[in-house]
Amino acid sequence: MRLARITGRVVATIKHEALTGVKLLIAQPVDHDGKAKGKQLVLADPLQSGEGDLVAYVTGREGALALDTSFTPVDAGVVAIIDSVNVENK
Amino acid sequence: MRLARITGRVVATIKHEALTGVKLLIAQPVDHDGKAKGKQLVLADPLQSGEGDLVAYVTGREGALALDTSFTPVDAGVVAIIDSVNVENK
Amino acid sequence: MRLARITGRVVATIKHEALTGVKLLIAQPVDHDGKAKGKQLVLADPLQSGEGDLVAYVTGREGALALDTSFTPVDAGVVAIIDSVNVENK
Amino acid sequence: MRLARITGRVVATIKHEALTGVKLLIAQPVDHDGKAKGKQLVLADPLQSGEGDLVAYVTGREGALALDTSFTPVDAGVVAIIDSVNVENK
Amino acid sequence: MRLARITGRVVATIKHEALTGVKLLIAQPVDHDGKAKGKQLVLADPLQSGEGDLVAYVTGREGALALDTSFTPVDAGVVAIIDSVNVENK
Repeated sequence: MRLARITGRVVATIKHEALTGVKLLIAQPVDHDGKAKGKQLVLADPLQSGEGDLVAYVTGREGALALDTSFTPVDAGVVAIIDSVNVENK
Repeated sequence: MRLARITGRVVATIKHEALTGVKLLIAQPVDHDGKAKGKQLVLADPLQSGEGDLVAYVTGREGALALDTSFTPVDAGVVAIIDSVNVENK
Repeated sequence: MRLARITGRVVATIKHEALTGVKLLIAQPVDHDGKAKGKQLVLADPLQSGEGDLVAYVTGREGALALDTSFTPVDAGVVAIIDSVNVENK
Repeated sequence: MRLARITGRVVATIKHEALTGVKLLIAQPVDHDGKAKGKQLVLADPLQSGEGDLVAYVTGREGALALDTSFTPVDAGVVAIIDSVNVENK
Repeated sequence: MRLARITGRVVATIKHEALTGVKLLIAQPVDHDGKAKGKQLVLADPLQSGEGDLVAYVTGREGALALDTSFTPVDAGVVAIIDSVNVENK
């Protein structure tokens, strides 16, 4: 899993029928300290995440598992809304 | 999923037989604001996307799921044509 | 597999139900000589790794196999705590 | 899928038995205009591609599907020999 | 598949039980001309590769297939020891 900050959402009328009702969010991957790192992506979200939330997401086939429907063409999904990140800086 | 702009298409006579009739498009991954980011790729397209369209695509095994035929050797496919991207800039 | 140093952990109240009881650690990928290389990630950990440990982790579907529950939406997991790395420098 | 130019081949006597008879080619990923982009890789080739050919290839589990034997340890394979790439430059 | 040079090995006492008896090697990905390119990784090796050998390896689920036990949490494995790489330089 990686961490990302939710920054927006996408709207699509023409889409694969299995995506009907699936919320699609724009997310910016971040480091443990919240710094943006890497390319934005679109996450399927079953957890009611909102803009500004820090989330953990999975990619690949596990993205579909996050939706409990493993035959959906989804490759990235939110699996947890993060309360806190605890890192010991040496 | 990631966002991409459709920029062209490829034509191939010699191909895996499971690709017969599958439309193959050239796409440039983009950020939420439309800026190109990352390497171009070839997407299978079941949604009749056209050049210039902004699409969401999936990669890996889910690329084949986009075609509803999971045993096709396709690893990237269009799953939605995007109407709008809403991002709150802080 | 790749090598990583465990640097912290994340706490999440709202999460996919299959993640209940799964320990989630922050890890920094490292080279064989311990130098940080690449983006941090969140690893599921069934081996009781602690902060500072050098571990080997797997990604993708194998991340879930590390937990012995292949239908969990986990895409990266610890599979070994490393005792030593032996590299012959030429 | 991505585009690549075939640049050579590899010869291996000691290999996984499922690779017996599988042609292994060296390929350089390229952009739609033929410019090299990214790391070379080794592709399994069921299509009789030759050096200099522009091909489309798939990676991951789909690489094995390209060979019609999905339990072969192959993660990248040629699926089409490209006749032409049509891109509208704006 | 990609090419890599074997540079060492790792020793781990605490590990996933399915890794018992699996040899784990440190490898440096290389280009066709032997130049290092990209991050080191840990490969499962069923072929008795030795330090200095040039090998072809697969990643993802195919890494486990290389071991003939597809439910092992392994995501990268050696599939061939390379005798020669033939590239025509234009």
